[in-house]
Amino acid sequence: MTVTTADPPHVAAARRPWQEVVADKRQAQADAIAAYLAKNYVVRDPTIVDEPDIAALAASMASGDVRAQDVAAAYIDRCITAHKKTNCLTEILFDEAMARAQQLDAHLAAHGTPVGPLHGVPMTLKDQFDVAGHDSTLGYVGRAHQPAADSCVLVRLLLERLGAVVLAKTNLPQSIMWCETANPLWGRTTHPRDARYTPGGSTGGEAALLSEKGSAVGWGTDIGGSIRIPAHMMGLYGLKPSSARLPYTGVAVSTEGQEHVPSSVGPLARSLASVRAVMEALAGEKPWTVDARCAPLPWRHELYDGTIARPLTVGVLWDDRVVRPHPPLARVLRQTVALLRAAGHDVFDWDPALLHADLVALQDAYYGADGGEDIRRDVAAGGEPMIPHVARLIARGGPAVSVYEYWQLNRRKWALQQAYLHQWNTAASPTTGRTADVLLLPPMPHMAVPHDGCRWVGYTKVWNTLDYPALVLPAGRVEAQDCAAAWPVGEARNDTDAWNAALWSDNKADMLALALPVGVQVVGRKLEEETVLAAGKVIDDLVRQAL
Amino acid sequence: MTVTTADPPHVAAARRPWQEVVADKRQAQADAIAAYLAKNYVVRDPTIVDEPDIAALAASMASGDVRAQDVAAAYIDRCITAHKKTNCLTEILFDEAMARAQQLDAHLAAHGTPVGPLHGVPMTLKDQFDVAGHDSTLGYVGRAHQPAADSCVLVRLLLERLGAVVLAKTNLPQSIMWCETANPLWGRTTHPRDARYTPGGSTGGEAALLSEKGSAVGWGTDIGGSIRIPAHMMGLYGLKPSSARLPYTGVAVSTEGQEHVPSSVGPLARSLASVRAVMEALAGEKPWTVDARCAPLPWRHELYDGTIARPLTVGVLWDDRVVRPHPPLARVLRQTVALLRAAGHDVFDWDPALLHADLVALQDAYYGADGGEDIRRDVAAGGEPMIPHVARLIARGGPAVSVYEYWQLNRRKWALQQAYLHQWNTAASPTTGRTADVLLLPPMPHMAVPHDGCRWVGYTKVWNTLDYPALVLPAGRVEAQDCAAAWPVGEARNDTDAWNAALWSDNKADMLALALPVGVQVVGRKLEEETVLAAGKVIDDLVRQAL
Repeated sequence: MTVTTADPPHVAAARRPWQEVVADKRQAQADAIAAYLAKNYVVRDPTIVDEPDIAALAASMASGDVRAQDVAAAYIDRCITAHKKTNCLTEILFDEAMARAQQLDAHLAAHGTPVGPLHGVPMTLKDQFDVAGHDSTLGYVGRAHQPAADSCVLVRLLLERLGAVVLAKTNLPQSIMWCETANPLWGRTTHPRDARYTPGGSTGGEAALLSEKGSAVGWGTDIGGSIRIPAHMMGLYGLKPSSARLPYTGVAVSTEGQEHVPSSVGPLARSLASVRAVMEALAGEKPWTVDARCAPLPWRHELYDGTIARPLTVGVLWDDRVVRPHPPLARVLRQTVALLRAAGHDVFDWDPALLHADLVALQDAYYGADGGEDIRRDVAAGGEPMIPHVARLIARGGPAVSVYEYWQLNRRKWALQQAYLHQWNTAASPTTGRTADVLLLPPMPHMAVPHDGCRWVGYTKVWNTLDYPALVLPAGRVEAQDCAAAWPVGEARNDTDAWNAALWSDNKADMLALALPVGVQVVGRKLEEETVLAAGKVIDDLVRQAL
Repeated sequence: MTVTTADPPHVAAARRPWQEVVADKRQAQADAIAAYLAKNYVVRDPTIVDEPDIAALAASMASGDVRAQDVAAAYIDRCITAHKKTNCLTEILFDEAMARAQQLDAHLAAHGTPVGPLHGVPMTLKDQFDVAGHDSTLGYVGRAHQPAADSCVLVRLLLERLGAVVLAKTNLPQSIMWCETANPLWGRTTHPRDARYTPGGSTGGEAALLSEKGSAVGWGTDIGGSIRIPAHMMGLYGLKPSSARLPYTGVAVSTEGQEHVPSSVGPLARSLASVRAVMEALAGEKPWTVDARCAPLPWRHELYDGTIARPLTVGVLWDDRVVRPHPPLARVLRQTVALLRAAGHDVFDWDPALLHADLVALQDAYYGADGGEDIRRDVAAGGEPMIPHVARLIARGGPAVSVYEYWQLNRRKWALQQAYLHQWNTAASPTTGRTADVLLLPPMPHMAVPHDGCRWVGYTKVWNTLDYPALVLPAGRVEAQDCAAAWPVGEARNDTDAWNAALWSDNKADMLALALPVGVQVVGRKLEEETVLAAGKVIDDLVRQAL
């Protein structure tokens, strides 16, 4: 049997030197920004961007107190500033956003009711999300100048049902399979507080933009930590739901068609309330009726409220036994556990030794399943160079396996998923005998780092293979006490652990000076986003009170 | 990267001539039956097997009116008779079943309460379901003498939570990928009413046994029609749920590890009430807490009751445009539609032209994805010959594709799933403008047929690729009027259509003499088993009233 693998249209389209396509796209971006600025919209109230809770922001517009176009103008102003500073944007949708905001204002004036529960809330999208009339390049030169015919299901729900406004699309790394943000088409996105640092990735453009208040909700995707890692690095809230919770249709992705580790769509925001609000609003629109891969799960208030109402049982995973977390991460996790215990919650140690090494080994085996063909084709289509990380990824993956061997990897995955569920059902708190509502662990072994400094995503990616929901929330910052501690203690466990130790020794003075944010990660059972957000709310309230 | 593909234990074990292993297994089966018979259990009430509703049967035992051991003895008696007639059994669990039934009686006597909602209900299992201490050969010689260490999740739930009794395991075809039932290890299973005919497959042993009242609920799997086809042929009720509804862990299968078309676990029974009862009871045990692949969906009474309470909107698919259904199938479907309309339900024509040909072409492309390696390995491990159907299947599949090409097939699948959902959302009844609650269509283009007569499963397998729940229920039998009609009218559409036409012409006298059952198929949206069973109840009640 032969599968047709004719060149897709964008391959045929990109016959010019890749540098010309890059210059074109960047010029078009600059032109779109200039065209918007030429319209001289007035920012009536620049402080409107300071409201971190989108429900409050939407309410201010639904009541007529604030106009959607004024909110849009204030946010777009911040988008432009953030982009100048960090190179975070790709496609510019400012004119459409302003037109949309004006329509919303007109609708409200005419009908007296908002268009939806998130009327006027400004949102932005990682470059993968199709928006009709705009490219979804994913940072590949060969995908330029191929505008999407339709908007993806998520964007249609956000605009048509919820009443949101979409301002722009944002940058991501070549291949998407990296926790930093750089590609030959759009260049590198930098940390807003220090251009030598990365804001993380792959949803790095969103994280840089959100932290500069250029958006109220950012939409990302996560197949190994790509929402949670930038959220952690930039002091934001980021949720990776289980993959069947939110609609993926119309979202382009690397290695599309692989079903072994599912990528999830999820939100990043500047408050946990905003994350909960978008999740609840989207579940209310029954995404399973419009996206074939979604599970029919309404928002389960009883699960959320029930979790909030009783003492939590939390399994804490201090260290994955492969790469030791930097002192600020270990300290912030200890402090968070102490806050939970002081508030009457039950926290017990969770053993990563049983399964995490197996899960990571499996994922590494998967990386080379297609021999890198998917990424190589996309890079070759445009003719641009591979960034060093992608070249390493492809080299490490080795030759493609056979379909039969691939099925054997899937069998190992299913066995590990079943074994992890068994651990969850049997590992009980010695105090109460209860099993965990959620797990609590570091999002990474380090904070934001200088570019090309990321090497280990074992703390996030295991939850993709298991397809468990996972939330990152900001729980502290680098402090002087972290730098004073003698660390690391003992020999390096392996090369990656040694690399990570050196990252801290070499950069801790800068990391302290930048007061880099430190997150914690909350993980729940598959498709229990309500439980994760409820436990996150308990933890977030305790952390905010203690600050 | 190299994936370890060392021989599994059962491969190393099977070094003797395959005929010896076959003789061993068959002798062990005969010995187990003889050992049970030697115990001379008395069948107090042979008519107990006539109760088709397991809720009523369980209630009679829970109240103490009937002993579980008397039910078991009566059913086992029928198992033995059915096996002599049809060769339907594989592993014999009679002694364990009787011991279990005695425990249930003792429990009831001691506590006054049943063990579970299906206390004492006798069930049987397609050979794939692991039961501790017994082989799961799947009809492969090379898997003999490798008893399972643990029972599968479904069996544990049935026994430990619901109180069921498991009597035996039943026959299936080599490779499982066939709608008849024969393999070199256990031989061929025949139709109880005519040994020249097949009871269907791949869950053919169950269907033969159930139709002879040797079981109250039979558990099967379905990746292309394997529950629905034998249910249709034997006049039974068979449900293929969406794959995430019931637990698959511990169920061995061909091409295990493939994720492109999911196989589903589901029940067959002699009444629709029994199918609903087991589904509701299992959902009540929260299978997602013990099986990593299940979705967290409780039994949604409101969905079931709501569907029952209002007029149905039904899309009827008369003909898949590839193979024309035999006259009895066309007539029974027309009669069913007439009954629905007369009762005030809205039925409109459903267009298969849009997507069914694409779905079938995709599935045919998938068949060869591994170049037949999985099946070849299993056959080679035992040394037995391939049955002709499997040899054809492997030959048709051609060489293996690459993992990258395999991913492109998955992309096509996702696009087709999304397109079918779009059709469901937009194809509306011209009368009411409503979209379909369910679709109604033939299960196959023919009834039970002489052995090796099955060629076309397009009416069932599309719902596996879409992962939609599908129910088959008996709605009539072959009648004289079917034979009197001039059929087929017009040219054959293709070779398969010509084959199917000849099947009818050559065998209609026998089919009439046998009064072969004719089913209809009810299909719902993904994971809406409640809607499908509710619509099935409406249809079944109308059909029973009209008989």
